[in-house]
Amino acid sequence: MRSEICRSDADSIRIHGLDLVTDILGKVDLGQMAFLEIWGRLPNPREDTVFNALIVALVEHGLTPSVLAARLTYLGAPDSLQAAVAAGLSGVGTVFVGSIEGAARLLQEAGPADAGEDRRQALARDIVARFKAEKRIIPGLGHPIHKQADPRTARLLAIAAENGFRGGHVMLLEAVAAEAERSLGRHLPINVSGAIGAIASELGLDWRVSRGIGLIARTIGLVAHLLEEIRSPLARELWLRTEHEAQEPL
Amino acid sequence: MRSEICRSDADSIRIHGLDLVTDILGKVDLGQMAFLEIWGRLPNPREDTVFNALIVALVEHGLTPSVLAARLTYLGAPDSLQAAVAAGLSGVGTVFVGSIEGAARLLQEAGPADAGEDRRQALARDIVARFKAEKRIIPGLGHPIHKQADPRTARLLAIAAENGFRGGHVMLLEAVAAEAERSLGRHLPINVSGAIGAIASELGLDWRVSRGIGLIARTIGLVAHLLEEIRSPLARELWLRTEHEAQEPL
Amino acid sequence: MRSEICRSDADSIRIHGLDLVTDILGKVDLGQMAFLEIWGRLPNPREDTVFNALIVALVEHGLTPSVLAARLTYLGAPDSLQAAVAAGLSGVGTVFVGSIEGAARLLQEAGPADAGEDRRQALARDIVARFKAEKRIIPGLGHPIHKQADPRTARLLAIAAENGFRGGHVMLLEAVAAEAERSLGRHLPINVSGAIGAIASELGLDWRVSRGIGLIARTIGLVAHLLEEIRSPLARELWLRTEHEAQEPL
Amino acid sequence: MRSEICRSDADSIRIHGLDLVTDILGKVDLGQMAFLEIWGRLPNPREDTVFNALIVALVEHGLTPSVLAARLTYLGAPDSLQAAVAAGLSGVGTVFVGSIEGAARLLQEAGPADAGEDRRQALARDIVARFKAEKRIIPGLGHPIHKQADPRTARLLAIAAENGFRGGHVMLLEAVAAEAERSLGRHLPINVSGAIGAIASELGLDWRVSRGIGLIARTIGLVAHLLEEIRSPLARELWLRTEHEAQEPL
Repeated sequence: MRSEICRSDADSIRIHGLDLVTDILGKVDLGQMAFLEIWGRLPNPREDTVFNALIVALVEHGLTPSVLAARLTYLGAPDSLQAAVAAGLSGVGTVFVGSIEGAARLLQEAGPADAGEDRRQALARDIVARFKAEKRIIPGLGHPIHKQADPRTARLLAIAAENGFRGGHVMLLEAVAAEAERSLGRHLPINVSGAIGAIASELGLDWRVSRGIGLIARTIGLVAHLLEEIRSPLARELWLRTEHEAQEPL
Repeated sequence: MRSEICRSDADSIRIHGLDLVTDILGKVDLGQMAFLEIWGRLPNPREDTVFNALIVALVEHGLTPSVLAARLTYLGAPDSLQAAVAAGLSGVGTVFVGSIEGAARLLQEAGPADAGEDRRQALARDIVARFKAEKRIIPGLGHPIHKQADPRTARLLAIAAENGFRGGHVMLLEAVAAEAERSLGRHLPINVSGAIGAIASELGLDWRVSRGIGLIARTIGLVAHLLEEIRSPLARELWLRTEHEAQEPL
Repeated sequence: MRSEICRSDADSIRIHGLDLVTDILGKVDLGQMAFLEIWGRLPNPREDTVFNALIVALVEHGLTPSVLAARLTYLGAPDSLQAAVAAGLSGVGTVFVGSIEGAARLLQEAGPADAGEDRRQALARDIVARFKAEKRIIPGLGHPIHKQADPRTARLLAIAAENGFRGGHVMLLEAVAAEAERSLGRHLPINVSGAIGAIASELGLDWRVSRGIGLIARTIGLVAHLLEEIRSPLARELWLRTEHEAQEPL
Repeated sequence: MRSEICRSDADSIRIHGLDLVTDILGKVDLGQMAFLEIWGRLPNPREDTVFNALIVALVEHGLTPSVLAARLTYLGAPDSLQAAVAAGLSGVGTVFVGSIEGAARLLQEAGPADAGEDRRQALARDIVARFKAEKRIIPGLGHPIHKQADPRTARLLAIAAENGFRGGHVMLLEAVAAEAERSLGRHLPINVSGAIGAIASELGLDWRVSRGIGLIARTIGLVAHLLEEIRSPLARELWLRTEHEAQEPL
């Protein structure tokens, strides 16, 4: 029973073959380190740019339910910062952020998407027909606010394309979006989760851990929000405002 | 009730004043983004190097209790990756990683440590005497394996010094270590958590979120271990090995 | 924004209309209190007996992955008992315990199962055919060890029947088990999760919180295991045994 | 590596020596089962009454921060009920509920409190003087709303006394409350957490798991609130109300 990721003894810690002290510290930055951990090798510059952008896109989005849960948890357990962060991450499920996983799974399970345009069209038709028949939402498409286009999507897809990662998965998602518009009769732009799921698939990330991109990103965001909570508390007010209403006379 | 970190509307997401799409994506890497989130501004190159090293140092350390907890959690809830990561982070408390917080708190509460060598010596004597009287372990010193010196410590302190971050907090911790050796009669090297706590203090990170450095780092590590768990499961074997022993005849 | 469960002010706490101090404390026991919380009224004696049995059945099952995760978490965060329990619960997902939810959902979504034997047979045939076609495991049936019969199942179903809760959902699950044996050609006894899912459905518990029975039960078990961990630690040994193997020479 | 709590094989599950199927199911109720798990034996009727009251007292207290965190988590991860409950429990720390632990620790570490009135007075004086000198709040005393008396306290202490559990720990807490009033010059009634910590100590519960009483209780409450959240959602409104304010024009 051993992990292949790390070997350590009293003198050294080797991570995927690199020595932490002599090869990594001061030489490998955080994004490269995350890539090394997950892929088992350092990224090339193009992978590095694309992978960083995917995580950075999800670090911060204001007072999300996840952030509120973390702040409320901190109120009761201020000496367990990790418990507040864990509570915040617990809600990074299927509804928010988790649609990355849905999109990545859809694309990766569709089979080799690089077999040409015709094959992609056929796959897209199959996918849309299946979701339509099951009355399910197609993951990665549509947004309640950005009805025409999600500005993050265009930017991420451009960064991917500039670096050679507009491959079969991205093109299949584009084909699915076009087919969905044709078949369902309304514009469903690729949303940021869809873009991330597709580009992560181009990078070869297994869909089963694709939600991890959101988890890494949101942990950073949660720490920042907990620092703000310490300096400018709002969870207590949020709670008392709610409680107050619950405490009106019976 | 609002957060100052992020403002978003249908057209844009602004994080500490920067536009996510036009100013950040493709331009700001993950380490810089984490710094921006927490400090409210982008790092200068020296801060960037030092901050990246602090987090990178804690990303991976093999089959830690936290990693084992995450892998065992995944066994029961494979469709909730976030629950496995949250379980792993829940153990990033006072014993492992959390000693960052102890060291950072000690140094930050000691008052201005840059008032000169004499003042630092006096503070160090007070601190060691107090912990000795209370029979408590001084956070940031000593290591069960690296009895002479923790190789990560020297490297991190060197990176900090090269970039202008060998200031009052680092020197106070060094003074405490020297005084502890004198007063307690045995060598207690600064360990990696102590070094990180001191350098994070130099960067101005509030000790109350200093554990966050470990949380960001370990989330990356946990995602990598869960990917390995999917490909080469070991949690079931760990469990069955234990269970088997528990199932010996009554 | 208010909850209908509880109204409280400076003088009283009323839970579903009962006063905590005068109506509940010393008069309502834990099982009744749980029923009151969830159903909004106290149970009658038959409901009380059945509901208690469902939870009691899941309190303890030795060194489960969930228990190991909690003990390993405690090792790193001994001053945050809640974090260890939260970590343990995080793994109560689809694989262990969560199959309650699968069975309850299957039965509750099948529509009114009390329309008579013929209707039930037809439903059972549909269900088995559907799972067979989708190559999915039928929730609530089969057990890796109890291949002939799970002794807990028979006892729980007997307690339910004695108290008037052998209704449409239980009979539908029995019909599904019989049809599965006929259609798949092998004996698949109702397992304990299936029995609990069916009986909870008889009690009218919404399948979407049926996993809650396991969560209440396991929280009790986790607290007991953490007490044992304090008195007779085993997590450190479990970890070191694993670590040791990971620390063999490179 | 084995747990003494449970032995199981293909034919039976024995919990602290009792067979789950033949000795427990249908015979042991939930409160008794919790006592059996934690104490290793069934309670006598007096212990049963007192222990049930302690947990029941903490099951429900409206829209607490913990409940809000669980509901907000559910919003993002509706298919992981366990993650929402785990998030809710993560905040059961030192501030809410956790003061049980503070009171139980204080009383249990004070040494044998049954050595007579004089000894108790001396202990109480020492304790109050120590907390006063350290400017710390004495756990278990005072309440922001119930300034004269917490009605739950009187009821719980009466139940304990009626059943023979007004022993040294309860009397020491009463002595501490009286001494605090004398020394600090203001009335500080024993609050519900103090009463529970003292009575749990009478029952012999190790202070290090005394927070577990709150965890068991709150898990029940969280499941009930999540059921209400499914039927009458309020988390989304809570979030959007906050978000809306955050989304005002820049």
